Amino acid sequence: MVNSKFISSASNPIIKNIQVLQAKKNERKKQGLFLVEGIRSVNEIPEHYEIDTIVMSDLFDEAELKVAGTKQNLVVPSELFKTMSGTETPQGIMALVKMKEFTLNKIEAKSDGFYLLLENLQDPGNLGTIIRTAYGFGVEAIFLTKGCVDLYSPKTVRSTMGALLHVPIVVGESLENYISWARANNLTLYTTALDETACKVAEADFAKGNMLIIGNEGNGVSNEALELADQKVYIPMPGGLESLNASIAASICMYEVMRQRTQ
Amino acid sequence: MVNSKFISSASNPIIKNIQVLQAKKNERKKQGLFLVEGIRSVNEIPEHYEIDTIVMSDLFDEAELKVAGTKQNLVVPSELFKTMSGTETPQGIMALVKMKEFTLNKIEAKSDGFYLLLENLQDPGNLGTIIRTAYGFGVEAIFLTKGCVDLYSPKTVRSTMGALLHVPIVVGESLENYISWARANNLTLYTTALDETACKVAEADFAKGNMLIIGNEGNGVSNEALELADQKVYIPMPGGLESLNASIAASICMYEVMRQRTQ
Repeated sequence: MVNSKFISSASNPIIKNIQVLQAKKNERKKQGLFLVEGIRSVNEIPEHYEIDTIVMSDLFDEAELKVAGTKQNLVVPSELFKTMSGTETPQGIMALVKMKEFTLNKIEAKSDGFYLLLENLQDPGNLGTIIRTAYGFGVEAIFLTKGCVDLYSPKTVRSTMGALLHVPIVVGESLENYISWARANNLTLYTTALDETACKVAEADFAKGNMLIIGNEGNGVSNEALELADQKVYIPMPGGLESLNASIAASICMYEVMRQRTQ
Repeated sequence: MVNSKFISSASNPIIKNIQVLQAKKNERKKQGLFLVEGIRSVNEIPEHYEIDTIVMSDLFDEAELKVAGTKQNLVVPSELFKTMSGTETPQGIMALVKMKEFTLNKIEAKSDGFYLLLENLQDPGNLGTIIRTAYGFGVEAIFLTKGCVDLYSPKTVRSTMGALLHVPIVVGESLENYISWARANNLTLYTTALDETACKVAEADFAKGNMLIIGNEGNGVSNEALELADQKVYIPMPGGLESLNASIAASICMYEVMRQRTQ
């Protein structure tokens, strides 16, 4: 563990930079850094991620911290920590982590793998929750179209509960590029839809390698994705509802894939 | 449709009262009123709910409004509407609705019904999302223990997307009272758990009338609920995750009940 340095000035450039990284996507991208908050998420940062800085509140018990090898550890007054935190009730610990870039042509598809493609997802909480579920159900890699909300927004990172760091996630490519990759790797393409050609998700056969396409919260998947999909699926709703929350629908579809594969 | 009255003063008592109702659980309870926002949710308010007041921004097109029989319709400047709304990008329409009280002894259990019991759920968004899913999957009634977050908090109401008004929801009783009701009605009690006596949720048999118990976000279900349940179930996670988001876990369990019943 490196020695901790105490900073009490709100105008310290490191402190100011963390506030900027909380708020601005462009700065996160430019600096290649994002923030992970909370003791559990920080302690679970895998070794293949580089931690640039750990920041603790002076009320945080340093003995709880299990990560090693950070460039610098900072301690700040708890009131100052609050102004740097993305949460209303901060746990007093955050890590500034270097982004890892996953490029599509370096993802090696498994012939029986299960992959997730998210098209223009807009809500940071939904995105984070979906990533968390995907990790739980053994998704091999996640692909975000360039219209998706920022993967590294504090709310998304928080909602993944650390799962973000455990699954390869490719960002910024077009739907076509991801689908070409799936085709080249003989994956079957599934998407949610409400039209007559869709089958109940429980009746689709997810045994072989596949990619599941989940669409935007308001509009669902694009016409392009609907046309390119091999099989459309829907979740039956005997109640009176028109649609489920996007993260719920995505999670139920992923659950179905997992259920069929672990029977 | 009653005539609309224009109010431009931020100090008007009706305006001030709506701001109070947005913020304060006790005032909502005392007045027996809660707020429903957004054109879709407002238009879908069932007739058996009494609408006290409709408030519109002056930029809102009144022709979109499909509800009748409100006591009063108010129009306010859009800037004033923003100060009354619980959302950052308001749609310019909200309704002040009278609460309906559902008491446990008036809920008639169906022998093959599916019921949901939420124990000490803390997050308004989770609660709302679970209610939305429950309505979609045909849950007959929802029971909230007295330790749950307020059913009528603006975030919960918003997350239900109107479903709150379509399912009977009983609040404020103890876990024991709800379980006694379930026992008296011969419902089988299921709960999520991680211990060795739990079976995969897909292998549990939900054919008969049942009540599913979902626990608190951080701590899961109480020991008491675990002891009283007839069958414990778990969601397999072949990935590396310890737990799913509470609304995801609850929704997947409800999906399983629905899946088995619509095969």
